Amino acid sequence: MTDTNRRFLLSKRPEGKPEPDAFELVETDVPEPGPGEVLVRTLYLSVDPYMRGRMRDRESYAEPWAVGDPLRGGVVGEVEASNHGDFEPGDVVVGNLEWADYAAVDGDDLRSVDPDLAPISTALGVLGMPGRTAYFGMLEVAHPRPGDTVVVSGAAGAVGSVAGQIARMGDCRVVGIAGSDEKTSFLTDELGFDGAINYAATDDYRAALDEAAPDGVDVYFDNVGGEITDAVFSRLNVDARVAVCGQIALYNEKSVPTGPRKLGTLIETRARVRGFLVSDFAARFDRATERLGRWVRSGDLRYRETVTEGLENAPEAFIGLFEGENVGKQLVKVGDRSG
Amino acid sequence: MTDTNRRFLLSKRPEGKPEPDAFELVETDVPEPGPGEVLVRTLYLSVDPYMRGRMRDRESYAEPWAVGDPLRGGVVGEVEASNHGDFEPGDVVVGNLEWADYAAVDGDDLRSVDPDLAPISTALGVLGMPGRTAYFGMLEVAHPRPGDTVVVSGAAGAVGSVAGQIARMGDCRVVGIAGSDEKTSFLTDELGFDGAINYAATDDYRAALDEAAPDGVDVYFDNVGGEITDAVFSRLNVDARVAVCGQIALYNEKSVPTGPRKLGTLIETRARVRGFLVSDFAARFDRATERLGRWVRSGDLRYRETVTEGLENAPEAFIGLFEGENVGKQLVKVGDRSG
Repeated sequence: MTDTNRRFLLSKRPEGKPEPDAFELVETDVPEPGPGEVLVRTLYLSVDPYMRGRMRDRESYAEPWAVGDPLRGGVVGEVEASNHGDFEPGDVVVGNLEWADYAAVDGDDLRSVDPDLAPISTALGVLGMPGRTAYFGMLEVAHPRPGDTVVVSGAAGAVGSVAGQIARMGDCRVVGIAGSDEKTSFLTDELGFDGAINYAATDDYRAALDEAAPDGVDVYFDNVGGEITDAVFSRLNVDARVAVCGQIALYNEKSVPTGPRKLGTLIETRARVRGFLVSDFAARFDRATERLGRWVRSGDLRYRETVTEGLENAPEAFIGLFEGENVGKQLVKVGDRSG
Repeated sequence: MTDTNRRFLLSKRPEGKPEPDAFELVETDVPEPGPGEVLVRTLYLSVDPYMRGRMRDRESYAEPWAVGDPLRGGVVGEVEASNHGDFEPGDVVVGNLEWADYAAVDGDDLRSVDPDLAPISTALGVLGMPGRTAYFGMLEVAHPRPGDTVVVSGAAGAVGSVAGQIARMGDCRVVGIAGSDEKTSFLTDELGFDGAINYAATDDYRAALDEAAPDGVDVYFDNVGGEITDAVFSRLNVDARVAVCGQIALYNEKSVPTGPRKLGTLIETRARVRGFLVSDFAARFDRATERLGRWVRSGDLRYRETVTEGLENAPEAFIGLFEGENVGKQLVKVGDRSG
């Protein structure tokens, strides 16, 4: 443990795609934990597409950050000092903390991570918020039925890769859409998807869907929005269900994005479209995490992580999300466990 | 009864808004009913927006008409002759028949109308397909809850006027959107809507909604689509429900209509959007009709009809639907009951 802490602040609101100059790394002293607080040393930091929304100056489900505010996100860390009865030094914890080497945080806002159950980094991915998002979004919003054709966009990402595998467990035919041959091979060869479309290698998404999903689309789990989603909507079957999880293709738009109107399609298909936030399911997070953990240990649920080394490279890792650089969960490794 | 029958045929596929030359009135002999058939003399003919879809050369939920085919729609008529055990001359029946003075039709495809329960024309409106569409769409798709703010577009039409009143019965605050002061007065003064917006009198639909629905929109029953719907989507509350019943603003578009993308809004609000067709609820039509009839007789459910006289004016009545000329159900009166 050193005396110096590094923290990232939002130095300006990005216009369009974020650039590195939106992030400022400042040095401060390591904070002292107050009563009930825990000093956490960051091991892994999560960067997630939804954070782009918090960089905008407009109300949304996540409160916007002010310029000069610290950036925050999921962190797995090790307890360095504790004034909270539930934690002691050496414990591994997860919480929503600053992008920093150290944070002093109310112990009530932390949860324990059991390093014997799974690699601790999974608490930010397959066994963390992205895994739970996939779990609730697929099972309780999209409602796949055995025999359904399920299409997942952003399928090689932290959420999509889990969502597709959960649908596979439910005896669905799963087709993933992703942006490189490396990713589509990952989906079909490692994760057992029935089909995959590399959208970067085709101009005609509809024709690619007709080939990969010849019986049409019963369930669409959407992480991306935009033209890929337009194509999938054109192939929805009667009684289709669409779970809207993310719209990463649109997060950097400077003006209101436009596209073909879709409500008429919903009448013909009687489709149901529902947006969701994983936080709405908070009462049942433990149950979901327990099930996801069981599937990971049994080998039914596989995952991959893309790890960027060094806190100073967190902005680059975040920006890379919008360039499709990650396969599976994008993490930033900041430190190693002690001992 | 004369020896001459008049029938309307689709003489060409309209491009954009239908013009009178898409309809051809031809004279033929009055048909002879075959075994099991009934000869029906038309009293009232229904024109409905969904018929526009059948004039297009593309597959949809309603099979397209071929050029030269007779136009068809809801008809209330009187039995002139019957080879079917359920019907005898003088009976009033309803069915899906040709736009014609007479039709010979399988008696199994007709239902009896009881002239003592309500005016027979209501079998095409408040107690017919439009009323049932409102009933199932509001109660089983939109799911309003007491205290909800419910917005209905196309609110003065055959479906919207019933949908809004059903939400009122459920203790909701109901705001209708319609296209003239006559219509908004009808909604608030006759039907008991809590508020109404004349979209033709404002350029700023969002500001009008902020005034009429200051607490935002919990339920949106959409009959129109387009920019009115864009505005309502921008005002959806968390957990909003949208029932997509019709998109009349788009039915005459020559190319794929575009507009602001909406799926991001669904994430923030966790809103549910569902399209529906009344035919999906066919197993429970009788129950819905019975309830609607009870509400009409008790005065809880009011209705208005706009009646155009003369079969020859059916095209004009149909075209008028897209110009917002009707208040309540648009009918064409073709004949009077005998006796």
